Amino acid sequence: MPNISQRGVNMPASPIRKLVPLANKAKAQGIKVYHLNIGQPDLPTPEVAMDAMRHVDRKVLEYSPSEGIRSFREKLVLYYEKFNIHVNIDDIIITTGGSEAVFFSFMACLDPGDEIIVPEPAYANYMAFAISCGAVIKTIPSTIDEGFALPSVEKFEELITSRTKAILICNPNNPTGYLYTQKEMDQIRDIVKKYDLFLFSDEVYREFCYTGAPYISAFHLKGIENNVVLVDSVSKRYSECGIRIGALITKNQMVKENVMKWCQARLSPPLIGQIIAEASLDTPEDYMLEVYNEYVERRKFLIDGLNRIPGCYSPIPMGAFYTVAKLPVDDADKFCAWCLSEFSFEGQTVMMAPASGFYTTPGLGKNEVRIAYVLKKEDLAKALIVLQKALEAYPGKTI
Amino acid sequence: MPNISQRGVNMPASPIRKLVPLANKAKAQGIKVYHLNIGQPDLPTPEVAMDAMRHVDRKVLEYSPSEGIRSFREKLVLYYEKFNIHVNIDDIIITTGGSEAVFFSFMACLDPGDEIIVPEPAYANYMAFAISCGAVIKTIPSTIDEGFALPSVEKFEELITSRTKAILICNPNNPTGYLYTQKEMDQIRDIVKKYDLFLFSDEVYREFCYTGAPYISAFHLKGIENNVVLVDSVSKRYSECGIRIGALITKNQMVKENVMKWCQARLSPPLIGQIIAEASLDTPEDYMLEVYNEYVERRKFLIDGLNRIPGCYSPIPMGAFYTVAKLPVDDADKFCAWCLSEFSFEGQTVMMAPASGFYTTPGLGKNEVRIAYVLKKEDLAKALIVLQKALEAYPGKTI
Repeated sequence: MPNISQRGVNMPASPIRKLVPLANKAKAQGIKVYHLNIGQPDLPTPEVAMDAMRHVDRKVLEYSPSEGIRSFREKLVLYYEKFNIHVNIDDIIITTGGSEAVFFSFMACLDPGDEIIVPEPAYANYMAFAISCGAVIKTIPSTIDEGFALPSVEKFEELITSRTKAILICNPNNPTGYLYTQKEMDQIRDIVKKYDLFLFSDEVYREFCYTGAPYISAFHLKGIENNVVLVDSVSKRYSECGIRIGALITKNQMVKENVMKWCQARLSPPLIGQIIAEASLDTPEDYMLEVYNEYVERRKFLIDGLNRIPGCYSPIPMGAFYTVAKLPVDDADKFCAWCLSEFSFEGQTVMMAPASGFYTTPGLGKNEVRIAYVLKKEDLAKALIVLQKALEAYPGKTI
Repeated sequence: MPNISQRGVNMPASPIRKLVPLANKAKAQGIKVYHLNIGQPDLPTPEVAMDAMRHVDRKVLEYSPSEGIRSFREKLVLYYEKFNIHVNIDDIIITTGGSEAVFFSFMACLDPGDEIIVPEPAYANYMAFAISCGAVIKTIPSTIDEGFALPSVEKFEELITSRTKAILICNPNNPTGYLYTQKEMDQIRDIVKKYDLFLFSDEVYREFCYTGAPYISAFHLKGIENNVVLVDSVSKRYSECGIRIGALITKNQMVKENVMKWCQARLSPPLIGQIIAEASLDTPEDYMLEVYNEYVERRKFLIDGLNRIPGCYSPIPMGAFYTVAKLPVDDADKFCAWCLSEFSFEGQTVMMAPASGFYTTPGLGKNEVRIAYVLKKEDLAKALIVLQKALEAYPGKTI
């Protein structure tokens, strides 16, 4: 039997999904599992999107263009205008989820051995895509005690080598909920410019900024227009993660042409997903506002609740719908597995994503978890009680 | 401005899609373009599939499991049984089109520098996926004069090195329409076994075998059950290329676990596509028969027509819905571009895929094109007339 690839051995399991088999076992035993592990909102997909799907007027569900349906890309141009992001239709390439946009960015811009600097904790799948294409992620730790603010410019410069090709940020941030300030974004721009790097900017949570502080897109930064590759997705903002529609946006002609080779290799992004996503752009403002207000409330409720549990600490996330919280446990990986396999309270338990999977520096995040506040308040309330009971019962507790 | 990757420079443009800009220009000038270049059937998607989409009874279009929806995989087990392919639900991983199944197979099984032996001409995107993961495709030419039969075992063995990790076949074959015989499949099995290789077997055209000769799946071969990775797709058999649903099927536990890491990294395959594909498995037999008969007729019509054009030759494809035909031209790349940019007959022209893109051996396929017979007979008839007129007018004609 031939061996699998070393690359495959090196691939990390998703910290968000690796505990799924344990969760399935718990469910099979009749235990109710609160999913705090995954950014799967429980909010309804907009009616206008569902209607578009139900009224598809085609005889053949055929390939779409490799770069995506034109009318959808035209409407996206207008959507981005609202955020002061000025792009042309040719700058927008539709991808199979934001995931594929990250992957194609890496493939088109990075060769094996090329290095990307990423503030950590970071969305775990960046690592998986980097391994897929042989690129090396160099991380700069941000810390929970500083609310996961951007590390200093010096820290970036310490990591720059002749192989450094890109900086990757996620703003608002998954997993921390941090929102980069104008000053921080200017610092990133300066480094990108000084060393002529790509700036991969994952901005899928732009609609979820809660503090009144402005959302600064990488495309707002002057003088690096050709360095920016923006990653986007409709998944979160319209609660339609399953349709797998994202976008890669760049003004860099060479990158565009190159990314198109991968787009053509995989033929086309999902047709029905694009139809749904295009219709979603017409979602009424009151839906968006309702969703926004819901997350504002959930955020307050969750963070207050977490900080009331003895030994727990979470900074207040400014955006997205995650937080990274510190728990009074020896090892959050063990604790999260234990919650699913050996614990329940009144027939319920919680599933969280151990934060270690969002760091590459060994040992970091060992007592941290990522929690998504994508459940309704009454479920969050129950989950918080279960979490507190679990922390009281856990053999590896540290208080 | 930072440079794109060398990998990107090395990526070939799709021979199927690279002429799209020229085709778009021709269309903008009001010219009717017959698409013989792409395997996009014009047949309607089954009603049962469209109905499933129109009646999706969900509030939230959420992520599906990374390995695909369970009920869909259960039904696929029964589908494969009909072809004497005995697999369990856990052997089936749903992918975003057959493309992703090829890509994940390569990623999970091959490291940079590992070699795959592929009979050529071969589906061009194998090359793109190989470049993506740093693997090296070594091709063995099959020739139009021998009807694209499998090259001899000796030819395979000549190419085997310490880095050879896999053989890749497509059966029935895209682009040639060749269907491997039992004897040929046994030869492949013997090599796979002798050198302990992976056998990647792309069998997406299994429903399209026209000669009465049996379709032999890689899973029918005894003694290499753990070596086989089967690539499948619902795109062609239900004329639903746009939904992007395929499958990777293997009994090799290590490969499965490894592929799942990539599945988790990209989160999930398209939800609506899976719902449509699952429903498609209930397509009535009479639809399948009608489609089959349609292709039988189109095949005969196209091949007869091609072989009547002076200087043209096409063997009779035994399966799939393509043929590789020899044309009396100096360079099929130039000819195909010329048809779109400088030629029209009564306001019409043809788009074909130059076969050079399906070979890696330089110079091979120079006067060959791949033609898909996915258009209805009356369109094929017009396309054949246009092709004949183009060949008469083309400055680089060789007769």
